[in-house]
Parts: sequence; C-alpha cells; structure tokens
Amino acid sequence: MAVIAIDAMGGDHGVRSTIPGALDALKKHPDLKLILVGNETLIRKRLKQLKAAAHPRLEIQHASEVVEMDEAPAQALRNKKDSSMRVAINLVKEGRAGACVSSGNTGALMATSRFVLKTLPGIDRPAIIYGMPGINPKTGERVITHMLDLGANVDCTSDHLFQFALMGSIRTAFVDHVKKPRVALLNIGEEEMKGLEVIKETARRLADCAEINYIGFVEGNDIFWNKADVIVCDGFIGNISLKTMEGVAKMISFVVKEAFSCSLLSKFLAVLSYPVLRKIKNKMDPRYYNGASFLGLKGIVIKSHGGADELAFSMAISVAVEEVAENIPGRIHDQIAAVLGPTDER
Amino acid sequence: MAVIAIDAMGGDHGVRSTIPGALDALKKHPDLKLILVGNETLIRKRLKQLKAAAHPRLEIQHASEVVEMDEAPAQALRNKKDSSMRVAINLVKEGRAGACVSSGNTGALMATSRFVLKTLPGIDRPAIIYGMPGINPKTGERVITHMLDLGANVDCTSDHLFQFALMGSIRTAFVDHVKKPRVALLNIGEEEMKGLEVIKETARRLADCAEINYIGFVEGNDIFWNKADVIVCDGFIGNISLKTMEGVAKMISFVVKEAFSCSLLSKFLAVLSYPVLRKIKNKMDPRYYNGASFLGLKGIVIKSHGGADELAFSMAISVAVEEVAENIPGRIHDQIAAVLGPTDER
Repeated sequence: MAVIAIDAMGGDHGVRSTIPGALDALKKHPDLKLILVGNETLIRKRLKQLKAAAHPRLEIQHASEVVEMDEAPAQALRNKKDSSMRVAINLVKEGRAGACVSSGNTGALMATSRFVLKTLPGIDRPAIIYGMPGINPKTGERVITHMLDLGANVDCTSDHLFQFALMGSIRTAFVDHVKKPRVALLNIGEEEMKGLEVIKETARRLADCAEINYIGFVEGNDIFWNKADVIVCDGFIGNISLKTMEGVAKMISFVVKEAFSCSLLSKFLAVLSYPVLRKIKNKMDPRYYNGASFLGLKGIVIKSHGGADELAFSMAISVAVEEVAENIPGRIHDQIAAVLGPTDER
Repeated sequence: MAVIAIDAMGGDHGVRSTIPGALDALKKHPDLKLILVGNETLIRKRLKQLKAAAHPRLEIQHASEVVEMDEAPAQALRNKKDSSMRVAINLVKEGRAGACVSSGNTGALMATSRFVLKTLPGIDRPAIIYGMPGINPKTGERVITHMLDLGANVDCTSDHLFQFALMGSIRTAFVDHVKKPRVALLNIGEEEMKGLEVIKETARRLADCAEINYIGFVEGNDIFWNKADVIVCDGFIGNISLKTMEGVAKMISFVVKEAFSCSLLSKFLAVLSYPVLRKIKNKMDPRYYNGASFLGLKGIVIKSHGGADELAFSMAISVAVEEVAENIPGRIHDQIAAVLGPTDER
C-alpha cells in the first residue's frame, strides 16, 4: 500500500481543491493511503462538507503554518518549520510516506525538499521534470514528452545537464514503460555547429554514454511532435519554454471562446459543436498533464500547478503513486552508481 | 518612392511565392518599387505566368547563384558572391535599394548582411526582432509584442542586451507609433531575486536609462498578453520561445482540424461553423505576422519565414516599407549616439 503525504494548504485554492482532489485519488487507487497535512480544523471542516469525515484510508497530520505563494524560499525554509509543506516533506524523510504532493510555492518546495531530503549521491542538483503534451503526427494520438529542468537551476554545467539526461531517461523508462527512451538536448538548430558550448559538450558526453539512447538536438517546436521522449535543457530555458507554451495555449483558447460567443449565431454554433469542442478541450486540457516531479532527491516530491483544481490535483497524486510503485529514487540511485561509478555520499 | 530589393530565389518555394508576393505588395503600396534579384529566366517565366511581364514598378537584377536553405553561413559568405541574397544586400549597400527582403537561410542572411552592411556605431551585434501575436485581455483585441533577439546571438552580455532594448524601443516607437514603448526583460520570475546575473545587471542599467521606459521582468506566458511592447532576451532563449510558440500553435491547430474532421457529423459542424473557424484562423494566422527585422545594421534587412507563401511574403515586404518610411537605421544611429555618447565608427 502506497502512503502519500498531501500538503493540504498549498496552492491558490488550498483545502478547497486539495481535499476533493485527494478523495478522487483514493477512489482511483484502491491501494492508496493519504496523509492530509495542514490546519486540522480546516481539513476536518472540508472533509465534512464533502461527506468524507471518516475515510478509512485517510489520516490527518496537523501543521500550524502555511507557506505563502509569494514567500521567499529562504524565508520559508528558515521561519516556517511547522508549515504544511515542511511537515509533509518530513513525513517522507521519516519514511512514514513514500511521497509528498504540493501545489505550493515552487521555490520553497524545492528549497525545503533539498534541505530535508538531500540529493542522491552523484547528483549535484535536483531538477524539475514535467510531461509536455504532444501529438504523434503519424497516428494523431496524444503523446507526452518529458522535459527537464523546468526552473530549479538557472545556470547549468555539462555535469548537471548530463545528470538530468540520465535521471530523465530512467524515470521515463519506468514510469512511462518506454524501453530505451529517446533523449534529446534542446537547442536552436539541429546542425551540430549551432548552440552553446555547454550544450555541445553535453552532446558529446551523451553520445558516448551506452546507458542513454541519445538522439541529438531538437528545437522548441519539436517538443510537441513526438521527436523525443526526454528533452534536456537548463532550468531557465525550460521555464521560458513551459511558460511560453502555457501563454500560447491560453491565448488560443481565449480566441476560440471569443469567436464562439461573439454573436447569437456563433453561440448557437458553439452549442451544436459542443461534442467536438469538448473533445478538443479534453485533448488539450492542462489539468490532465498536472504533476511535475523533483528528480534527484532521496525521496519523491511532486509539484502540482499552483492553480490546480480538484481534477488537476488528483492527477498530480497519480503521478506520485506511479513514482512510488516504481521506486524512482532507488532506481536513479542504482543507475547513477552504475554509470558514474561509486560516488561519495553527500 | 521606396525601392526594395527582393531575394526572389530564397525560401522553400523560391519564385513560386516571392514573385506573386511581390506583385501583391506593389498593389498594396502604390509608391513602392521592387527590384527582383535572382535567375532572370526563372523570374521572367514566373512573371509571364502571372501576366505581369512588364510592370512599371518592377525591375530585374540577375544573380547566378542561390544560397541553399541548409548551407553553412560561412560557406555561403565565402563562395556565393553572386547569390540572389548577396546581390540583394549589395543593392542596399550601394544605395540603390532602401531595404532587402529574403525568405532564405537565416544564418547566411545575417552573416552576409553583417559583412556587407556593417553594424551601426555603438552596436556590437545586430539582433533579430519579431512581432509576436498577442491579445489585449481587456479589449480582446489583437496586439503585437516585439521580441529580440530571436537567434542571432546565443551568448549575450549586458551591453548587448542593453543595446537590444534601446534598438527595440526605437523601432517600436516609430514603426508601431507607440509613444514610450514598454520595455521588459524576459525572465523566469517577476521577483527581483530571480534569474541570471546578466539579466539582473541589464535590469539595473535599463532602470537608470531615461530614454527607455523599462517596466521590469516578464515571464514566458506574458509574451502573449500585452504586458509589454518590447521584450528583450538573448538569442538562444528567444529562439526557443519563438519555436515553442510555433510548435504549440501547430499542435492545437492539428487537434482542432482533426476533431472537426473525424466523423460525418463533425465535418458537417465544421461546414456550419466555417465563419467562426475562419475568424479564429485569421486572428491566429502566422502569415499576417511574417517579417522579422535585423536591427543594428547600416541598412534594412527583413527576414521572411522560409516557408512563406505569397501572402506571408507580401507582409514581410510591408514591414520593409514601414522601416524605410521611418528610416529606422538612421533613427537608431541618432539615438544610440544620444544615449551612449560619441562612439567609434566600426
């Protein structure tokens, strides 16, 4: 039975979305047990509203503080030792939970996870990995391309990028059951001459690594067209790319909604076309892709989008369930040792 | 009367799209004269097909070579001295044309432009500026946010970024007639603490510059929501962001098309909804946004998308017409001198 700690207070909506999301996840995963961490009164009240005051696979762990969404990570780490976020991560550290899920402040979650759980031997810095939505142009089917780092590390050396590639490949192989995941580096041209020196150096190392199925460079547009299973970049570039994707998708959605609601006729057409529009929405709905993972820690931490609603939050819990089932940190630990040789414990 | 040199052989479609695009532009701009540069036989043949063998505002300048789309820039520069691209740029250098427009190989176009035209005094490197499509969330209206650099410079210092900001601000003020354009730096968080050192340093310099209306940091998603008029970043990040935008837009367009064509009913709905779908398409159509400008040169060079069709190509010519009318290189020259003081001619 997987046990997962939930930061019930995190995100823009706090218990309003985390608690129903948790209950959804319990329905989906009959072997799952959840520990809701946060203000006990608020949690009990929300559970009662949802007629789930006494769920057999639900436990509550009180925590008196909350990390604000705009709080400086260092301040949260120093001053909020009884925050729902910190206590949830502590549960992972103590072995009482196999993973922690939070919609809270990304910077604070990363800083606290790193401080409490520490990085795996051989890993210098944890990275944020996220499954970007895409299409297989041959079949028209939905695919996922995992990208890392998405914002934890703004300045990366070739060592860091190499470690990201290795971690991303291992996670994708086990969580997505992809044999020999295709690993690519994000660059501004497919030609070997282009791009930054650090990327070129990483490319040479990846090409020489038998454990990684390195396929070369991909460009920003390739992210969405099934060109690779894992795309590696530094956190600055990854974050800009992720946010660009979110911005464009939101803009197009705005334009579509507006066009279908600007006149009586277009509103009527929207009603008629509802099944088609819903199909489009479902295929693109970012809630189904929710749940980024912090890779490289001695424990599993899943970051849910700050604005996640209950559906999105339950998807992030499902990501945690899969990582627990596959023991991703353990697998990364073993493979890193196999590739890099024995490393000092840090 | 503006005179513009057209690289008639450039792009994926060569004379098939450049010549009809040029004829379109002549219709739109009654004061425009074009010089079509390339293989004279092919150009005359295409003009004849389009029943425009003798247009009074059209001239042909023969050039015997073509730069291939995947040719190394250095090789094109060294070996193709009679390419349509090179000859078109030469016409600008010689003062016979006020600008040059090409759909050809971006790297070769930049390298050749820089070699032939040289950079303006005070400008270390030219940058690629492009108008990203966006929405004003208050009015729902289409807006343009200009972003630079989009790929000419992978490694930038604070000096370079500062010059990009200044050039972008001047161009946007005159071409888009925006008073005091809002200039922002692309970063991964709006908080001052976040991001790379070079960006922070540039932020301090921009905040101190009276000639620039610097408004702070923006994130990747802000590009599309009218947060700024000019967004400055290095060419690596700009290119990844631009390509990400293209990839997402293409993916969503694929999903929409597929959903409206997967059954008889959905095809019927697509026919019914045609006016609405066309409205959406028009608002998002990248052809209307075609035409990136190389800023910082002693002359105007406009890069059209390699895959541009005739509509897209004529839009790129219109961008050139506006830059000629406003004498953008001259204005940048004057303002750079005013802000940076006298600089050595390079």
